[in-house]
Amino acid sequence: MPIALVLEAKNQLALREIELSSTLARGDVRIAVDTVGVCGSDVHYYTHGKIGPFVVNAPMVLGHEASGVVTELGEGVSHLAVGDRVCMEPGIPNMASKASKLGVYNVDPDVRFWATPPVHGCLTPSVVHPAAFTYKLPDNVSFAEGAMVEPFAIGMQAATRARIKPGDAALVTGAGPIGIMVALAALAGGCSKVYISDLVDEKLAVAAQYGNIHPINVTKVDVAEVVRAGTAGWGADVVFECAGAAKSVQTALEAVAPAGCVVWVGMPVDPVPVDIVLAQSKEIRMETVFRYANMYDRAIEILASGKVDLKPLISQTFAFADSIKAFDRAVEARPADVKIQIKMQGV
Amino acid sequence: MPIALVLEAKNQLALREIELSSTLARGDVRIAVDTVGVCGSDVHYYTHGKIGPFVVNAPMVLGHEASGVVTELGEGVSHLAVGDRVCMEPGIPNMASKASKLGVYNVDPDVRFWATPPVHGCLTPSVVHPAAFTYKLPDNVSFAEGAMVEPFAIGMQAATRARIKPGDAALVTGAGPIGIMVALAALAGGCSKVYISDLVDEKLAVAAQYGNIHPINVTKVDVAEVVRAGTAGWGADVVFECAGAAKSVQTALEAVAPAGCVVWVGMPVDPVPVDIVLAQSKEIRMETVFRYANMYDRAIEILASGKVDLKPLISQTFAFADSIKAFDRAVEARPADVKIQIKMQGV
Amino acid sequence: MPIALVLEAKNQLALREIELSSTLARGDVRIAVDTVGVCGSDVHYYTHGKIGPFVVNAPMVLGHEASGVVTELGEGVSHLAVGDRVCMEPGIPNMASKASKLGVYNVDPDVRFWATPPVHGCLTPSVVHPAAFTYKLPDNVSFAEGAMVEPFAIGMQAATRARIKPGDAALVTGAGPIGIMVALAALAGGCSKVYISDLVDEKLAVAAQYGNIHPINVTKVDVAEVVRAGTAGWGADVVFECAGAAKSVQTALEAVAPAGCVVWVGMPVDPVPVDIVLAQSKEIRMETVFRYANMYDRAIEILASGKVDLKPLISQTFAFADSIKAFDRAVEARPADVKIQIKMQGV
Amino acid sequence: MPIALVLEAKNQLALREIELSSTLARGDVRIAVDTVGVCGSDVHYYTHGKIGPFVVNAPMVLGHEASGVVTELGEGVSHLAVGDRVCMEPGIPNMASKASKLGVYNVDPDVRFWATPPVHGCLTPSVVHPAAFTYKLPDNVSFAEGAMVEPFAIGMQAATRARIKPGDAALVTGAGPIGIMVALAALAGGCSKVYISDLVDEKLAVAAQYGNIHPINVTKVDVAEVVRAGTAGWGADVVFECAGAAKSVQTALEAVAPAGCVVWVGMPVDPVPVDIVLAQSKEIRMETVFRYANMYDRAIEILASGKVDLKPLISQTFAFADSIKAFDRAVEARPADVKIQIKMQGV
Repeated sequence: MPIALVLEAKNQLALREIELSSTLARGDVRIAVDTVGVCGSDVHYYTHGKIGPFVVNAPMVLGHEASGVVTELGEGVSHLAVGDRVCMEPGIPNMASKASKLGVYNVDPDVRFWATPPVHGCLTPSVVHPAAFTYKLPDNVSFAEGAMVEPFAIGMQAATRARIKPGDAALVTGAGPIGIMVALAALAGGCSKVYISDLVDEKLAVAAQYGNIHPINVTKVDVAEVVRAGTAGWGADVVFECAGAAKSVQTALEAVAPAGCVVWVGMPVDPVPVDIVLAQSKEIRMETVFRYANMYDRAIEILASGKVDLKPLISQTFAFADSIKAFDRAVEARPADVKIQIKMQGV
Repeated sequence: MPIALVLEAKNQLALREIELSSTLARGDVRIAVDTVGVCGSDVHYYTHGKIGPFVVNAPMVLGHEASGVVTELGEGVSHLAVGDRVCMEPGIPNMASKASKLGVYNVDPDVRFWATPPVHGCLTPSVVHPAAFTYKLPDNVSFAEGAMVEPFAIGMQAATRARIKPGDAALVTGAGPIGIMVALAALAGGCSKVYISDLVDEKLAVAAQYGNIHPINVTKVDVAEVVRAGTAGWGADVVFECAGAAKSVQTALEAVAPAGCVVWVGMPVDPVPVDIVLAQSKEIRMETVFRYANMYDRAIEILASGKVDLKPLISQTFAFADSIKAFDRAVEARPADVKIQIKMQGV
Repeated sequence: MPIALVLEAKNQLALREIELSSTLARGDVRIAVDTVGVCGSDVHYYTHGKIGPFVVNAPMVLGHEASGVVTELGEGVSHLAVGDRVCMEPGIPNMASKASKLGVYNVDPDVRFWATPPVHGCLTPSVVHPAAFTYKLPDNVSFAEGAMVEPFAIGMQAATRARIKPGDAALVTGAGPIGIMVALAALAGGCSKVYISDLVDEKLAVAAQYGNIHPINVTKVDVAEVVRAGTAGWGADVVFECAGAAKSVQTALEAVAPAGCVVWVGMPVDPVPVDIVLAQSKEIRMETVFRYANMYDRAIEILASGKVDLKPLISQTFAFADSIKAFDRAVEARPADVKIQIKMQGV
Repeated sequence: MPIALVLEAKNQLALREIELSSTLARGDVRIAVDTVGVCGSDVHYYTHGKIGPFVVNAPMVLGHEASGVVTELGEGVSHLAVGDRVCMEPGIPNMASKASKLGVYNVDPDVRFWATPPVHGCLTPSVVHPAAFTYKLPDNVSFAEGAMVEPFAIGMQAATRARIKPGDAALVTGAGPIGIMVALAALAGGCSKVYISDLVDEKLAVAAQYGNIHPINVTKVDVAEVVRAGTAGWGADVVFECAGAAKSVQTALEAVAPAGCVVWVGMPVDPVPVDIVLAQSKEIRMETVFRYANMYDRAIEILASGKVDLKPLISQTFAFADSIKAFDRAVEARPADVKIQIKMQGV
């Protein structure tokens, strides 16, 4: 039996042997996992035992942000080879569903997603995955960066759905890990500049190490005013709401330009009041984001081009044997921490 | 001095002489007004003296849904001729503004709109208007229909912003005048069928006189369930929220299909709770509507084609001399009333 | 061995027994074929033995426009039941390909398409097909109409890619079967009126039996002038080029409005001269169409709504036993013929 | 009378006094011109006396790529001040036209464009221009860069119409000044990498000095093959055809990916053969570009951000007194020359 990082129940992690399916079906590849990032959702399952309707009722392997090396090919796989360095898209849809046929396989209700109950994740040395959702890494993209493709793909999805026009000014509300991913994807995706707002200076400082990202501390100034002052009074062409708070939802509507776009990325726990009349008065468009679809290859291309450098966002890397320590560090939620990773191989 | 229907103050209407500018500038036309529709906003100014930040602080002529005949051409007008039957778009933007240059002149903050304080409306026998916002009526579109172009243009704007794909199924929440306009525009604009929901059977009956409009009484059944049952479980590709109530806002999010679109047309008085996570789980797009831009010619073409027949929606027509009666009838808000009109000429 | 209409070689048809695969795999359904339409491509294989690079090197069953009744369900099929009346989308892509993941499975290079060498078609009493590409027919859509969904889906694809705005004026060049399908889809999809041009009055008369379709005989008048005269000088918002001739390609560019769209539907045998500078001077968009993707359910909904009635376009129906006669009638290419069908069952 | 660079007739330039209108109307500003770039169209008028239907029948001032300083404000101008450093959009549309109302003022047939017969250009020390088409330069954008905004705006228009998705791979055919502008706008606008093809190594070398631009010499390798090799066989998501040659038109269609986009930027003198069936087999979209609309502010923002540095493309700057030498240098068409500029003030 393989060893894996198992969430036994709320607040109980174990690095232990567990029975996992290892059948290599047609179209699958087997992958030696190299690096796995710790995601906020993994941490939330650890500390709360559930996310919304998804409840951990049985031991579940954690982890869904992964890179590795192909070790075996299933029948019919031609675009990958043994030895290829890869990263893996963690959601597997039913490709015959209506949503998948439409190209929006992320909203297929039957999608099976790593480390979402009752589906096991990938914090284990070897996994089997469909080749169609396994992406080759170029030589100049490291395993660590490969394991960052998953959160970056969310930023890419947000930037894509915004339909950024070259030179747009953007505002990102919330400088957490996702806010930063979104800001970087927005810049790479055509924005000339990105304002980013948060309550915490340390988080803003992490974001502001990148060029053309302008931090705004919401406790000190009015965000919408700052944005308007920087856009000749027009407002942000695109606002990415990544904080998920009622206040930032309102800020988004205030700061967006006429005919602009607000992308709802943050996930408020409860319904939040939205000033629909304010939105109408500018006739804005609003987009929502659910994970990503068809973003992995784009995200990898952006990383390979050097337009986005995610390496400064890897705060600390733990060996697989220290996985529980890695999670406990993530639970601390130090303000300047963006990404904690676990190195499965050769540490 | 011309005579006009003047709102002196809240609840005080007078048909009396009033000083009005009548200068015919370059690019303008003079129009003998024929028919004017009574809009909900006219009625609201009458009964409340204000709409949101727009307060009637001085006597104001009402009316902004109008058709008529061109009687004089200003310098430089070439696409219209004296004697042309026309209808008029009531908002005049600053065409040199950034919004206007972008083609979204409706969100130009400097737009001057008939019967929106402090701008006088058109319930007077003759008006001067920019030729660029005056549209010729084909022979088979009557003055009465011409005065319906304004509310129908809102429906057209909603249908256009939805980016309907041929064969889409739609839901309209709210079977008031605007809901019906939206439903008709959605059908003409490519939907295969439109569900329409309301609390009041009489309103639903008005809508359901048209083919492919399916009424749903929200007091009797679950709207989202009915829509899903009629769409093989998928949901409405487009939902037009026209009721402006918290409950219908939630219904819109429940009934919309994955990757679908909700258009916020109704204007809730206060911010309403929006379940952003529900919207995200289907990764929907949301559009808002503010009046209309570039819709008058399209609306007229649809009417001329016979694809939409608005005549059954004209509930009663009053002579100009009976304008106050017309408004009092509109204040009654009889369930089956859609549009009250005032005939200026030759009655 | 089942009987089928087999194209033995160029100009040689036989109704004979032939070995056909009949394995019902997971996700498949077995269907008793009811009606099959004769398509121009079927006829072209019959008379030329090839279409471009696709050469008939071995006996091949013809037919790809089909409706029928489900007789058996493969494992895992839940949205269909035995006895369901259905129609079938004839192209089966590799759903794990990049194109399919993007929602454009029609351009997947690995697509297998009925009656495209070396893939057998469906002119045989029973076929096996993936349930994901088999669509239930509503009660009010007949088998004959169900077998018309295939060509109508091309019209729907063209109308969808045009991104019609409600009230657009369109021009269709070429009043053959596809031109008529496109014209009807464009009207149902939001156009207020459609001009259609051709050399042959009989073809134009077939199209002009429908409301809001305006025929133009290109031998008698200038198409672009007629279109401009009918659109206040602006031109057609959308032109669907369905004739595939050099002259109509030029007409398309002349007749389209500034910022309009030309959809290239017709397939010229050789490259044709395109006046790119003329296209640029109006900054038009051009779209191309390759079969269809995600159109069957939409096409069926339009038929069920009654917005489009395809029944008048079925010129004659032959019994399966008379299949060769059906093809010989199609070869005649009578001007007023739109669709010849073959009834497999119960004739 | 002011002095200006006057094209007297084909091949005859004079720096001489000429009568020019200098009325400052409502909404206008007066500008002391600082820098003017020499455009290929200026040179073409000089060497050929005409461009297509535009013939120089009377002496005409050249120049349309300009920056300067505001010296006087007309009535009603509020967003500019005397002393502002600005650049000017050279085309002035009729803002009341249908095209302008739609936001596509560039295709308004009544547009008046600097140095397009019979409209005078701006190679003169002072010009009057509508404030709505005059854009303030940030402190970190020089006059020289300001005079580059015009050609860069064409690249921005092309990049915008392509609707680039973040991470797209692009191909630009033709490494002339416009090809390079397009390549830089495409990268800034979201592409991860841009291939650029040309016959001339010196031109490719100018382009390849920028990161993520990959040169391809068409005389040595097959462009489409190189692009496919660099995109895992998929092809370029977007191709910008900037050479205007029959061969590169074909290359564009060969190199573009399924469901991709070709933007026709180059202007072939005559209609060129286009393989429409090849375009259809991938179901591509094609866009055309005519100058630009609503791009100046975006272009300036991109320059101010540092995402694009145009300074290396300014090959040589001449004093106004040496204007004719500047044009003669431009006529030479040295392969590595991208932009020749004329400095009006203080040289």
